[in-house]
Amino acid sequence: MGINNGETIEDLQNGFSIIQNDKYFSFGTDAVLLSHFADIRPGETAVDLGTGCGIIPVLLCAKTKAAHILGLEIQPELADMARRSVALNGLEDRIDIVCGDLRNVLEYIDHGVDAVVCNPPYEKADAGKHNANESVNIAKREVKCTLDDVILSASKVLRTGGRFYIIHRTQRFAELMEKLRAKKIEPKRVTMVAPRQNEAPNFALVQACKGAAEGVVFTPPLVVYEPDGSYTPPLKEIYGIGEDKPCCTS
Amino acid sequence: MGINNGETIEDLQNGFSIIQNDKYFSFGTDAVLLSHFADIRPGETAVDLGTGCGIIPVLLCAKTKAAHILGLEIQPELADMARRSVALNGLEDRIDIVCGDLRNVLEYIDHGVDAVVCNPPYEKADAGKHNANESVNIAKREVKCTLDDVILSASKVLRTGGRFYIIHRTQRFAELMEKLRAKKIEPKRVTMVAPRQNEAPNFALVQACKGAAEGVVFTPPLVVYEPDGSYTPPLKEIYGIGEDKPCCTS
Repeated sequence: MGINNGETIEDLQNGFSIIQNDKYFSFGTDAVLLSHFADIRPGETAVDLGTGCGIIPVLLCAKTKAAHILGLEIQPELADMARRSVALNGLEDRIDIVCGDLRNVLEYIDHGVDAVVCNPPYEKADAGKHNANESVNIAKREVKCTLDDVILSASKVLRTGGRFYIIHRTQRFAELMEKLRAKKIEPKRVTMVAPRQNEAPNFALVQACKGAAEGVVFTPPLVVYEPDGSYTPPLKEIYGIGEDKPCCTS
Repeated sequence: MGINNGETIEDLQNGFSIIQNDKYFSFGTDAVLLSHFADIRPGETAVDLGTGCGIIPVLLCAKTKAAHILGLEIQPELADMARRSVALNGLEDRIDIVCGDLRNVLEYIDHGVDAVVCNPPYEKADAGKHNANESVNIAKREVKCTLDDVILSASKVLRTGGRFYIIHRTQRFAELMEKLRAKKIEPKRVTMVAPRQNEAPNFALVQACKGAAEGVVFTPPLVVYEPDGSYTPPLKEIYGIGEDKPCCTS
């Protein structure tokens, strides 16, 4: 445990910290927004599919009374870094980080969890330019798992009535709605995220519920930036600070 | 032709008029927004499924160089009123109103139209309180056709590459996305409609394209009202006026 060469510790402004390394994929505003959007109730269990540096389990433990969160990460270096962040925050009794393939989620945890969270790769495997940094490439593109894989894994591990929280690009929103419904995980709550007021939303936060009845509620949209480039009040509140941070880098 | 007892003529502020009758279902802002959202190109053909008083074909003829629009309406009294509105505007060479069931659309027009437009009933047949006025009930509830029927009819009559324009409550947005994709009519453009700035969107305008590739673009949202209850500038522009009109009465 501890900090390795090239790593930095980022203060999350909520009493918790996370280890980052420029060599690997770093968390963005999307992970922070998703953690804020996800509603884990006291005593519940959750799984974070593709946890990366472990930002989502740490933020969820900070804001909720979740009993246990499993963070699953396919990249050994990131899983190791996440595990050390968990230790750094003294959260070993509430978070387990496992290096594994989310497609085999039932090898790592039994069916019946209350909530699944996922900040997935946004691009199809063959979309755009392959990133020279393979860690970033795996986080950004569907190289190791597709949206179908993510939803199938969520459907396998969730109890009936359990909730799935995901953020995705609006470009893939129709596909996401269809694929969730195909696996009987019904979209129930959507918050659109727009860079600025009166701009097109570029991200969507979605809460879906396994086995729920049809019908979705759209909340007011979340606007990230003021016209002057500073964060809007809701974003400042989510971050617990007034400073600028990189947005949606993944 | 002409005006019957109990009917009024509403000036559409664009050189065209429409006959209305309080006894039947009157058009709302949703029909006006959908007509504005729909993009019919010069020389194209279109079908309006469930045309009601004929407001959508009249507005589309006013703003586009559409060659021909078929308005299909199951209620004989409304079809008759719509036909007289077409005559009132001298649009008989561009609009045909037919009294018929949209589920049998191919009885009234050949496959291969460029665009289909639909302002459907929003509520499921058994949802909410049955309206004592049967005309209003048919327009508001899926008594005579379901969302599946509407999408199936659109898929039957559209040419490959043809566009489908629909407005629906956000509550049914996930269902709409899934059902369009299931019939290979790919959602391509979405405009969310919110009553006021920073409020939850309650309607969605959707353009979908038969046989198109996956991927949808969300536009900036459309906001209907200013905080003081007056229309926003985009709505004033859509209406061509500054006065208040009833919104989304259906």
